[in-house]
Formats: sequence, structure tokens, C-alpha cells
Amino acid sequence: MVKIGIVGSTGRMGEHLIKNILEDEALSLAGLHVFDELKTDVPNDVLITNSMDALLEACEVVIDFSAPVATQELCEAAFKNPTPLVIATTGFTEHQQNLLTEAAKEMPLLYSSNMSAGIALLKQLVEQVSATLKDFDIEIVEQHHRFKVDAPSGTALTLGEFAAKGRGLDLDKVRVSGRDGQIGARSKDEIAVLALRGGDIVGRHTVGFYNDGEFLELNHTATSRETFSKGAIRAAKWLVEQPAGFYTINDCLGI
Amino acid sequence: MVKIGIVGSTGRMGEHLIKNILEDEALSLAGLHVFDELKTDVPNDVLITNSMDALLEACEVVIDFSAPVATQELCEAAFKNPTPLVIATTGFTEHQQNLLTEAAKEMPLLYSSNMSAGIALLKQLVEQVSATLKDFDIEIVEQHHRFKVDAPSGTALTLGEFAAKGRGLDLDKVRVSGRDGQIGARSKDEIAVLALRGGDIVGRHTVGFYNDGEFLELNHTATSRETFSKGAIRAAKWLVEQPAGFYTINDCLGI
Amino acid sequence: MVKIGIVGSTGRMGEHLIKNILEDEALSLAGLHVFDELKTDVPNDVLITNSMDALLEACEVVIDFSAPVATQELCEAAFKNPTPLVIATTGFTEHQQNLLTEAAKEMPLLYSSNMSAGIALLKQLVEQVSATLKDFDIEIVEQHHRFKVDAPSGTALTLGEFAAKGRGLDLDKVRVSGRDGQIGARSKDEIAVLALRGGDIVGRHTVGFYNDGEFLELNHTATSRETFSKGAIRAAKWLVEQPAGFYTINDCLGI
Amino acid sequence: MVKIGIVGSTGRMGEHLIKNILEDEALSLAGLHVFDELKTDVPNDVLITNSMDALLEACEVVIDFSAPVATQELCEAAFKNPTPLVIATTGFTEHQQNLLTEAAKEMPLLYSSNMSAGIALLKQLVEQVSATLKDFDIEIVEQHHRFKVDAPSGTALTLGEFAAKGRGLDLDKVRVSGRDGQIGARSKDEIAVLALRGGDIVGRHTVGFYNDGEFLELNHTATSRETFSKGAIRAAKWLVEQPAGFYTINDCLGI
Repeated sequence: MVKIGIVGSTGRMGEHLIKNILEDEALSLAGLHVFDELKTDVPNDVLITNSMDALLEACEVVIDFSAPVATQELCEAAFKNPTPLVIATTGFTEHQQNLLTEAAKEMPLLYSSNMSAGIALLKQLVEQVSATLKDFDIEIVEQHHRFKVDAPSGTALTLGEFAAKGRGLDLDKVRVSGRDGQIGARSKDEIAVLALRGGDIVGRHTVGFYNDGEFLELNHTATSRETFSKGAIRAAKWLVEQPAGFYTINDCLGI
Repeated sequence: MVKIGIVGSTGRMGEHLIKNILEDEALSLAGLHVFDELKTDVPNDVLITNSMDALLEACEVVIDFSAPVATQELCEAAFKNPTPLVIATTGFTEHQQNLLTEAAKEMPLLYSSNMSAGIALLKQLVEQVSATLKDFDIEIVEQHHRFKVDAPSGTALTLGEFAAKGRGLDLDKVRVSGRDGQIGARSKDEIAVLALRGGDIVGRHTVGFYNDGEFLELNHTATSRETFSKGAIRAAKWLVEQPAGFYTINDCLGI
Repeated sequence: MVKIGIVGSTGRMGEHLIKNILEDEALSLAGLHVFDELKTDVPNDVLITNSMDALLEACEVVIDFSAPVATQELCEAAFKNPTPLVIATTGFTEHQQNLLTEAAKEMPLLYSSNMSAGIALLKQLVEQVSATLKDFDIEIVEQHHRFKVDAPSGTALTLGEFAAKGRGLDLDKVRVSGRDGQIGARSKDEIAVLALRGGDIVGRHTVGFYNDGEFLELNHTATSRETFSKGAIRAAKWLVEQPAGFYTINDCLGI
Repeated sequence: MVKIGIVGSTGRMGEHLIKNILEDEALSLAGLHVFDELKTDVPNDVLITNSMDALLEACEVVIDFSAPVATQELCEAAFKNPTPLVIATTGFTEHQQNLLTEAAKEMPLLYSSNMSAGIALLKQLVEQVSATLKDFDIEIVEQHHRFKVDAPSGTALTLGEFAAKGRGLDLDKVRVSGRDGQIGARSKDEIAVLALRGGDIVGRHTVGFYNDGEFLELNHTATSRETFSKGAIRAAKWLVEQPAGFYTINDCLGI
């Protein structure tokens, strides 16, 4: 049994991870990092700690669905005690991204803004369509539940980066996040990444390619958060067998 | 035969109007207002003029698919020569809107940002759903071709107004046109009206209502611009029989 | 506290009902009808029985999400012991439908193939659009998870009935469930009701209205089964206050 | 200038082809095959004939958007006078398909049920997703205007074949064209190909992949028939430079 730990135990995804790990006979839930109190019931032998060092000591692999500051603390602790890390947090600063890159030299580290198989494949399709249908205008729409605090989603930005890559563009320079007023005709290279919010939508992402006479729309819909927790667990099981290095969910899925 | 004139003859919609009027045995194309040159072939007996006065003199009803300044000029001329006016231009200032209201006291004036029957009905459905499903979050997305210069479309704003009306809200105070960064959770009353651009899309509008456990999306798609030109012509035929007053396409359709 | 019972306790919806009722402080879970064994944990004081008579004896209102034969047994028992009944089962024979009608003379009986507020409103919108846009072709598509055994869904058929009603048509005479081969042009009155299956889709229904130049599509998506269990519980709370009679979810919602 | 001919000149696509060829300075409209009368105006020097032999004599390449019997007649004539052929007709018998294969040994022959670039790419994406996400259920929906006489569309069947190919399946054995009644749970391998009809829809195709927790939907929409006529013309220009052989639109687009 692989001893597994969680950073972000008290969040929405933490609850699903705890449930899915406890149900999985190949895994042992070894540690939970918390900043304050855990609301979920867990067996008595699970370490509950606010120390990243203690967590890493107890675990063979750690899954992190938290916030950038917590991930940073996790990585800094991991330099002292290299441990396979599955990172699903989004919204990093450039400094924090560099920290992940450095950490991946010392331990296997898998980072993806989205742990689903469908999104992993969609990223590839988007780059492929973008590169093949060069005349088509690209527009991206994502939708999430009313409580999501950042926009656009990390996944939408990742999809935008793959779309831009297919054209040799830099998303930061061509991204549009809204349109209002007398804005003039659309420029050829711009890529809108628009965010809808509402209800309890788990996650919808549509990448559209529009030309005279025809368009192509690639949509991914997550119908349950277990897609992400189960995807992260599948990644963790795969990662414990890998050498140090920087991986994505696509490496784990072999796509 | 009803003598009909066009303001905005050289635009995208002007071409369709000319074609559809020439095909219609109940109508006679009497006058075309142009600022410079007409590119479309028309019979020799059609008046082509840059004078609104001359246009109004020649016509029993005028259809206007132009720009706010041209509509303003049309209305000002019409005070001297009251004539039924079908206005489909969008983007008016408050002053121009008041001018339309004043003009409607002297002549029958029908104003709608969209001449299709589907949109006319959709406005009513949107108000109804908004008022009935009060807990549902409202979000609107529209999409048009890459050459459209203003955003969001006049139709999307009108749909937003009907959505706001169903809740007793003022769209100007709750409208959001984009989301970017750490914006926090969605506020209950906000209504996003987001604009996509690309290809040759004639017009797509979706009004969504999202709650925990379920959502409802009402979509209208225009597949051909003839929807608008034929709708405006139907409105013109109806308007010539009406007394002075302010009308919308819904009055004409009886819905 | 209202004493409430369930028929269909061991099904997919039964589990949600048990959970939602136990969480609700205004309700007391009084009885569960089972054919064999209950897999869900419930408090010791809940009656678990295979007798409809015993169930009705214990409850002030019963929610039924089962199969036609069980509903029939429930109704037959209820004639001896009239009790408010919320029926959400679908696929009844004509004989069984008549039984429901008869039962509603002796007790308040609410029957709807779908307990969500969105679908309740959608039925009305569909009839309204069908009656207003008479030239538009009507097509319906529904999608459910891979385990659903009947097609089209009861909800899709209900929506089809409201669409047909708006045109004065009988759905049985105009319904099409698939198209294959050299079938010829579409006839004006036909209404396709097509069923997609796959994954864990809770429920998607789209009613489309198509004409030259434009179309309107009304889509409802259920994102969680709690929409149905919570809707049935809301209906049960309302129904205990009503006199004998036949009701639908629309009566309960006042729409 | 390449001398080009059309089989199917009087059909819906024939009109677009004539218009687009006359506008193209690299092409000369040399011949039109008709069974009875041509309704479109064309220059006086264009050959209008009911003889395939005469048509082939006059042309360097022929585009065929007709019906299986006309295509058969065209191929039979072409054996005597080998000429590059672009075939976009659908609904062939096995005998007719073999005839195409034989003809392609004597002349360059490009056959595709759909001439758009988007559909050409979509076929590849569908095979790729089908092969990669093996656990996902596959369902296809197409929609066309109310006058289309066959169902499902040739394009939908082609997409189904690529989906089946990705799993090593034979579409004929797993295809479902409708669902009605107590049909039981969905079988793992079945692929529904459902056809909607209505309004003036040029062509919409959605291939969906559904799993627990997530789904992926790839949609192509044709907004104008010129997509097909311009695609066929691009194919014709490319084909005149190729040696004898059987080609598809993907060869022409290099994808």
C-alpha cells in the first residue's frame, strides 16, 4: 500500500480525495495538512498536521489541491525531504513557477491545472486544430460554479496557451477577457478567454474555431468533481514509480 | 403597391433589403439614401439620394438599418414630413433615444434592435423565466462575425434588459462585460453579457439561468440575414396601417 | 414534523431521498417500502417493510420513485387508507394512468415525470413557443446515463406532449424516434424525440424550433439528482396541505 | 485557365458551384451536365449537355454533386476518356463504390462525402479521441434542413466510421439509428448516429464521448453552402496536378 498525503484537505477537492483514497485498497491515507481544523471524519491513525515537514515525513507521495502559498511552503519543505508531488493548484506567480521547476530536479513532480483525461487530450487537439486551420478565429469560453474566485480558470488559460502555441503566438499578448463598446473589428490573432459563472457547474470549457462558412467547437464538460480527485490519485500512483523530473497528466496517461 | 425607402442602403443589410423588396410584388422600391456611392444594381426608376428630405418625399414608409447619426438625421427630417419609420439601428445616445420617442408622437415608429420573430418571443421568455426562477444566476453570451464593430450586440443588451426587468433590476447597474483575475465569488444580482466574435456568424444569443442542481439555457441562432430584412419588411407593411405611436416588433407580431 | 415514507427506497433516487429527508428538520423519515433488502443505513426507528399497507399506516405522505407495478400496488393500497401521494415514476400503462386519476378523487395526488422547477417551467415555454411560432419545425433530443433502460425519457415525452398541444396535434401520431435510409423530406407536423445515452449524464433535454433563417433551442440540464429528490420533498410538504385532487409540480410551484 | 465541368448543375450545390467558378479567374466554366433544363444564367460559351461523353470531352476536371445514378454514368463514361473527377455525391451501393475504386486506377479521383476543411480535420480528431479514450461511450448527432431526403447524412456515417475505426469496430454492426421503448442499458460498443431535420440548417455534426465524471463533444457547423462548393473547387485545382489514384479531401489539404 502506497502511503499518500494531502495538502488542501479542508477544501472542496480535499473531501473528495479523502473519500476516494479511503475507498482505494492500493492506498493508505497517511497524512493530511491543515491550516486550522478538519471537518471530515477520518480514521484515527491518519496524521493531521499543520507542518509540511511532518506531512512529508509520513508520506510516499503527496497530492496538493490548495492555494499558491501552501504549495510554495510544500515545495520548500520538499527540498529537505524529496517526495513525489502531484500539484493541481493554480494561480502561481513566476517565482512560484520557478520553484516548481527547481523542485522537479530533486524529485518527481507532476503539475497540471486539470487532472481529467478529457482535458489532457483536449489540450493536444486544440494545438493541432490551431496549427492546421490557420485562418480560423479562436475563442474560448469557460463556465464554473458561482463560488469560484478567480477567472478565467487555470484550465481555460492552459487551453489558450495550447491554442496560441499552434500559431506561434504568446497568449499574454493576444488574450482578451471581455468586449464592451465601440471596439472595432476583431483582430486576426486575438484570442478571447471569457468566463461565465453560475449555479453549481463543475466545469465547462469550449474552444471554438470560426471561419467563413464553417466552424468547429470542442467542448469538455466535467459532470463530477471525482473526475479530478480520481485523476490526481491515478497520477500519484504512477508518479511514485518515476525518477525525478517535471511531468504533466499527459505523461501519466501516455498521450 | 407600397412605396418603400431604405436608409443604410450600402451596408450589409441594405443589400438584402434591396433584393427582398424587389422580389416582393406588394412593394415598390422608391428611394435609397446613400452617403456616397451605391454598389448594388437597382432599376432606373429608383431614387438614389443623399437627402433625407428627398427620400421621405418619395416614400410611404422607410426602413433604417444604418448608424445612429444617420438615424438622427432621418428623424429630424421626418418631423417636417411625418412618415412611418422602421428603425433597426443600434447604439443610440440618450439624446437620440429621446428623439425617437418624440418622433413617435408625430408618426408611427417601430423600433427593435432585432427584427426576427424568434428574438421577439425570446425577450418575453427571458423576462418570464427571470421572474419565475428567482434563485437562478443569469448569464448571457452572444456571438457575431469578425467584422462587427460594437459589443455586446444591441440584441444581447435588450435581452439583458428583459432579464433584469424580471427581477426589478437595472441592467446598467448589474451588467458585467468580462471577468479577469481574483474577482471573488459571483454576486447574486450580476448579469454577465459576454461577446464572442469570429468567422461569418450571423448571430447567436444564449441566455442561461443557473442554479444548484439544474440550469436552463435559451438559445437563438440566426442562420441568414434575410431573417432580419424580411422581418423589417413585414414590419413596414404592418406599420403603414397604424396610427402615430411607438411600436416594437412584438406589436407587429401580436406577441 | 411531517411523517414521510418512500416507495422505491433501494433505487438511485431512493438513496438521495433518504439523505435529503434525514437532513431536513421539518420532516421525519417514517417508513421505507422495499422488495428485498435496504443497502442504506437509516436510524433504527424507521419502518422498513414490504407491505404497502404498513407503509401507508406509518406515513402522512409518501414519495414514489419506483416502477409502474410498485406504483400500482401503492395506489391500490391507498384506496383503503387515503394518503397524499407524490408520484415520480414513469412508463405507466393506460390502465395504471386511470388508476392514478381515480386515486386522485380520494386523496391529494401529485404526478410529474420530472420534479425540477426548470422542467416545470420549460413545459410551459415549449407550449407557448409551439403555439406562437407555428411555422417552425419542432425536434427534441434528450440524453441520460448509460444505465437508463427506457427511451425516450418520460420527461422528453412530456415535453413532446406540450409541443404537440401548442399546435393542436396528438404526439402519438406525429412522434418519430429515429431516421434511417431514404426517408424523404421532413413532414410539417412530425416531432422527433431522439434519445442519446452515455456516461453518467443526469439528464439533458433540448427542444428546438427551426425555421428558414433562424432557430430557437430551449435546453434544460440537470447537474445533480438532488434536483429531483429535493423537488419531490418540496412537493410532499406542499401536498399534505391540499384537498383531494390531481396535481402536478406546476401547481406546487404556482407556475 | 483550367477548364472545369459540373455534374449536378441543377441542384442546390450546382448553383453555388457555377457562381464560385465564374468568380474564379484561374478557372473556365467549360461544361454543365443536365438531365433536363438549366435554371441558372451562364455565359453563352458554356456547353450545356445531357451527354457525359460530351462533358468529359470539353473539360479538364469534373466536379460531381449529384445522385448515385448520375455518378455511375459519369464514371462509366470516364473509362473511355480518363479525366480527373471530384466526387461529392453520397449514398452509393457497393457496386457503385467498386466502380469508383476501379476508375481511380485510370485517372485521379477524389471522393469525400464532405468538402469542408473542418470536417476533414474532424474525422481525424474523432478517430484519435476514440482510440485514446477507450472507456468513453460514443454518440453522434447530425442536423440538416427540412428538405434533405436521406438520413443519417453521408458525413455523419463517415464520422461514425472513423469513430468505429479508433476502436477496431465495424460501424454497420454497432450503429443505432433510434431508441424507443424498454431497450435496456446501453451496450458498451454501440454508436448511435441520430438525425435531426428542420428549417434551413446547412449542416451540424456533433460527435460526443461520454464517461463517468466527464464528457467531450466535438461539433462542426457549416454556416454556408459555399464551404462545400469552394472546398470542391480547391480540390479540383489540386487534383488536375495529381497522377491516377484514389484521393480524399484530406490528401488535398495535407492533413
